[in-house]
Amino acid sequence: MDAQELKQVIGAGLLSFPLTDFDEQHDFNKSSYRKRLEWLKSYDASALFAAGGTGEFFSLAKDEYADIIGTAVDECRGQMPIIAGTGYGTRVAIEYAVEAERQGADGILILPHYLTEADQEGLRRHVVAICKSVSIGVIVYNRGLCRLNAETVEKIADECPNLVGFKDGFGDIELMMSIRSRLGDRLAYIGGLPTAEVFASACKAMGVSTYSSAVFNFIPRTAVEFYNASVNNDSATMDHLLKTFFFPYLELRNSGQGYAVSIVKAGATVVGKTAGPVRTPLCDLSPAQHEQLRTLIDRLGPQ
Amino acid sequence: MDAQELKQVIGAGLLSFPLTDFDEQHDFNKSSYRKRLEWLKSYDASALFAAGGTGEFFSLAKDEYADIIGTAVDECRGQMPIIAGTGYGTRVAIEYAVEAERQGADGILILPHYLTEADQEGLRRHVVAICKSVSIGVIVYNRGLCRLNAETVEKIADECPNLVGFKDGFGDIELMMSIRSRLGDRLAYIGGLPTAEVFASACKAMGVSTYSSAVFNFIPRTAVEFYNASVNNDSATMDHLLKTFFFPYLELRNSGQGYAVSIVKAGATVVGKTAGPVRTPLCDLSPAQHEQLRTLIDRLGPQ
Amino acid sequence: MDAQELKQVIGAGLLSFPLTDFDEQHDFNKSSYRKRLEWLKSYDASALFAAGGTGEFFSLAKDEYADIIGTAVDECRGQMPIIAGTGYGTRVAIEYAVEAERQGADGILILPHYLTEADQEGLRRHVVAICKSVSIGVIVYNRGLCRLNAETVEKIADECPNLVGFKDGFGDIELMMSIRSRLGDRLAYIGGLPTAEVFASACKAMGVSTYSSAVFNFIPRTAVEFYNASVNNDSATMDHLLKTFFFPYLELRNSGQGYAVSIVKAGATVVGKTAGPVRTPLCDLSPAQHEQLRTLIDRLGPQ
Amino acid sequence: MDAQELKQVIGAGLLSFPLTDFDEQHDFNKSSYRKRLEWLKSYDASALFAAGGTGEFFSLAKDEYADIIGTAVDECRGQMPIIAGTGYGTRVAIEYAVEAERQGADGILILPHYLTEADQEGLRRHVVAICKSVSIGVIVYNRGLCRLNAETVEKIADECPNLVGFKDGFGDIELMMSIRSRLGDRLAYIGGLPTAEVFASACKAMGVSTYSSAVFNFIPRTAVEFYNASVNNDSATMDHLLKTFFFPYLELRNSGQGYAVSIVKAGATVVGKTAGPVRTPLCDLSPAQHEQLRTLIDRLGPQ
Repeated sequence: MDAQELKQVIGAGLLSFPLTDFDEQHDFNKSSYRKRLEWLKSYDASALFAAGGTGEFFSLAKDEYADIIGTAVDECRGQMPIIAGTGYGTRVAIEYAVEAERQGADGILILPHYLTEADQEGLRRHVVAICKSVSIGVIVYNRGLCRLNAETVEKIADECPNLVGFKDGFGDIELMMSIRSRLGDRLAYIGGLPTAEVFASACKAMGVSTYSSAVFNFIPRTAVEFYNASVNNDSATMDHLLKTFFFPYLELRNSGQGYAVSIVKAGATVVGKTAGPVRTPLCDLSPAQHEQLRTLIDRLGPQ
Repeated sequence: MDAQELKQVIGAGLLSFPLTDFDEQHDFNKSSYRKRLEWLKSYDASALFAAGGTGEFFSLAKDEYADIIGTAVDECRGQMPIIAGTGYGTRVAIEYAVEAERQGADGILILPHYLTEADQEGLRRHVVAICKSVSIGVIVYNRGLCRLNAETVEKIADECPNLVGFKDGFGDIELMMSIRSRLGDRLAYIGGLPTAEVFASACKAMGVSTYSSAVFNFIPRTAVEFYNASVNNDSATMDHLLKTFFFPYLELRNSGQGYAVSIVKAGATVVGKTAGPVRTPLCDLSPAQHEQLRTLIDRLGPQ
Repeated sequence: MDAQELKQVIGAGLLSFPLTDFDEQHDFNKSSYRKRLEWLKSYDASALFAAGGTGEFFSLAKDEYADIIGTAVDECRGQMPIIAGTGYGTRVAIEYAVEAERQGADGILILPHYLTEADQEGLRRHVVAICKSVSIGVIVYNRGLCRLNAETVEKIADECPNLVGFKDGFGDIELMMSIRSRLGDRLAYIGGLPTAEVFASACKAMGVSTYSSAVFNFIPRTAVEFYNASVNNDSATMDHLLKTFFFPYLELRNSGQGYAVSIVKAGATVVGKTAGPVRTPLCDLSPAQHEQLRTLIDRLGPQ
Repeated sequence: MDAQELKQVIGAGLLSFPLTDFDEQHDFNKSSYRKRLEWLKSYDASALFAAGGTGEFFSLAKDEYADIIGTAVDECRGQMPIIAGTGYGTRVAIEYAVEAERQGADGILILPHYLTEADQEGLRRHVVAICKSVSIGVIVYNRGLCRLNAETVEKIADECPNLVGFKDGFGDIELMMSIRSRLGDRLAYIGGLPTAEVFASACKAMGVSTYSSAVFNFIPRTAVEFYNASVNNDSATMDHLLKTFFFPYLELRNSGQGYAVSIVKAGATVVGKTAGPVRTPLCDLSPAQHEQLRTLIDRLGPQ
């Protein structure tokens, strides 16, 4: 898939990141992961991010990463584009990106570099170097230590035709508006805050027309229902789901640091599609929290 | 005007805060302020905040405050509702609120308390006490040290029928969505970030249907044009104004701390409606910055 | 007391801020406050801050403030210097400072301005204007919105001979070291973080030779004991008190926002020297928390 | 070297992290790195951190890392202990730690995990897992996403006898004091803020008796002079060096994000011991900034 096709795909519908399955020894569970993809691709999403944030990219060894991307590509071939996460410092990020392209991924999502502060010029060089290391399309994720401003995003886009997407993980309205104002249709925009549904309306109004849904991992029907409501400006449905599910869910999620991922894994377990435990430094939800989550999920009816 | 009428007024159109005029000795310049109100009320705004943030509430002595509110009420009587700022600790905030009501203000805007951290219960008691000290409508401003969550806003609204508005100064999408989800039509919502136009689309999508425009102080025709474009979902007009005026303006504004107010006073001077200097701890823009601002304003054509 | 005398006093020993007494209606309780001062001045402190942060300066009306400063000056005349808090915007801060001097205060402590961001030049003008409004000595408090850098402090000190003290409320080692390096003995330095005892060793090593003790309000003997241990580099005593009292106390204090003041008022109540309730937006500790505090205090033995 | 020996070494003197040498293609320059170590080990430091923060750990590929640690161990064998950085998620951090031990490193420094928030329990498990993966001594670095509190550090120390050091990268006095109060002599404490000399006095007063010097890379004689002054409480020498070198140096360093490392590489170039360019996302200092730095260095005289 070339970069422009990827851009079309991103803009065309809901995105999601599958969880990465671990067994009881916390090793990658390939067969379970394969089943997960088989299940998820039957729902109406337009692409999957393999080994993204919700897929615990930050906890994977390099060889596991290759296995995960390869499995996802193999399982979804011809049915669902796979976008692979990359991250860390420039050299390591390039190693991951090149590996992902080699495995057949349709695009790359650049997660932030590691540890050090950097200025706009340094960030620009870092992102440009990764873009140039592959021929497939690239999405850059503004998050954490990587806070690109509009001018920098424009410079990168000018230099790298395969930069086709911008994912926002800050929710800073002024920043997002300035990027959208400057870059316009040059990029596709993706909402990338945890529990993106809460941000969907505001983001859409800023030209961020899609988002990646984490809850798609355990309530895919509801995730699609919400997304369609967003597309169709059906605020009654959105308001209802926000009130009855998403805000109570946020309360649970916000009760622990790092729960943005852990609660998704808990949700998968609750609905009988367990992906196993999270890896450290994350912690799994307690049994009592699992039950609270079950109550919220049950209210939504069958998926 | 009773509280429910105020709520209607807030929801009905553009809001603005007039600058407070100072003379060369930095004293309140009543005649200049009166002329400013006379000018501004000829434009299509639905209410004015007197002695709000842009009116340098934070720099006014108590007796000046009374004079300012009295002047605004007197000048705009029957033509434009006046909402008066209040702030500081509970007792002082009540003194200001009571004074404003005595002067004939149509509503109160509660700016944050001073200096100390406080928990939700303490904030609740603080806001409730102010609401109960007046019979006119009240708007609470979430900003700085006052970060009310949805549950607290709901408790205050339940206890205080005259709390009719919520003004958001954080731009935290999750927080704003949770408040809107919980309170719904119980309150009118106002965008309250500096240069609110940049936030207008995102805010409107969150149910924050109006905002207070600072640039109304020097480009009132453009401010109204932008507001009408927002109401009518005319994104072409909004995008054009954002690109040609607002983002370059932000760059200038963001070049100094405290410029969010100083630049508005500079704008008034540039268009021949000077409100005099700002008071410390603010600083006026430099002559070179005045010229940069003039260039931006001139592009917009006659106001 | 002239400014240089004040500087000597500050450097000579422990400082403290007495609580402000309120009755059950939350009104200023003058007779109770007078007794508090009578009690506290019998201990070995070198000056008292009346209507400072722990004295709930941020919750006082102007007329109460005058009464409090007047009472403190009257009660301590010839026995204990009184330094009066001031704060808010420039004009209001000057009103308070002038009132304090009129009431006979020996010095002024400038708490931060209100609400707005400001750059270094604006802060400089603000502090200079307050210094010039009085002839007594002034201490500036770096805290919250007022973050003066070394260059700005130097400019103010050059222009205002009566600026004799710098109180640090940030605990930013690089900032404090840069100020100390640039200003040297021109100023006296005071540690101004909540529960200053925890910071005493580090501060002393940075040339911040004294601090204002909040716990002096309820365990004055222990506060003096700790201070003397600090002066004498008696780390065994300091370590013991930190471990057995101060760190468990911090845990309780950190359990609520705004508790830095509330817990001191709770302590006064526990030891039979109640100063009444706190004012909103603060909240009093719960009865259970009072008991936890009592346990910690009892361990210290008679005061 | 067993863990207890490492602890003794840490406590015994100045530490430093050598830069990692890159050639013009930004590849690891082994011969240049070897010469650097040969030079640095002739000065009086007690251990070197290879591939630490100043050594651009965050930019190294795995195979380069092995080469760097191996080279450092080989070059310094029997003369200077080598402590190797590790970091990222648990599995990757263990891979690096095991590799370092295999290469003969004398200890491990754990830099923070990557990207995700985590609670204390998750952090604990992460650090414990790394400690248990090696038999050599371990130092944990509190920085960025890894903010261990005193209780968590104590739990890790209880479970892992080879945790022998704690390096502080926050400069939060309350946190550091609470850790020192709880752990006492169980650990050796290292100051780990950029340009650690500025923090030396305050840290020493908190029981943080040593630090790792970055400027040792280009002014080793001065770095040792400052360290000795610190050990001997020679505040005149420290104050003089702070005023004439370190604060002007900080001003330059603070002029760019990420300059904490770049300026050290610039310093090495200035003194004729170039380590080549920094890798992205860092940027090298401009020629003008190099000249400013040269002026500062020249003032110090021969090294």
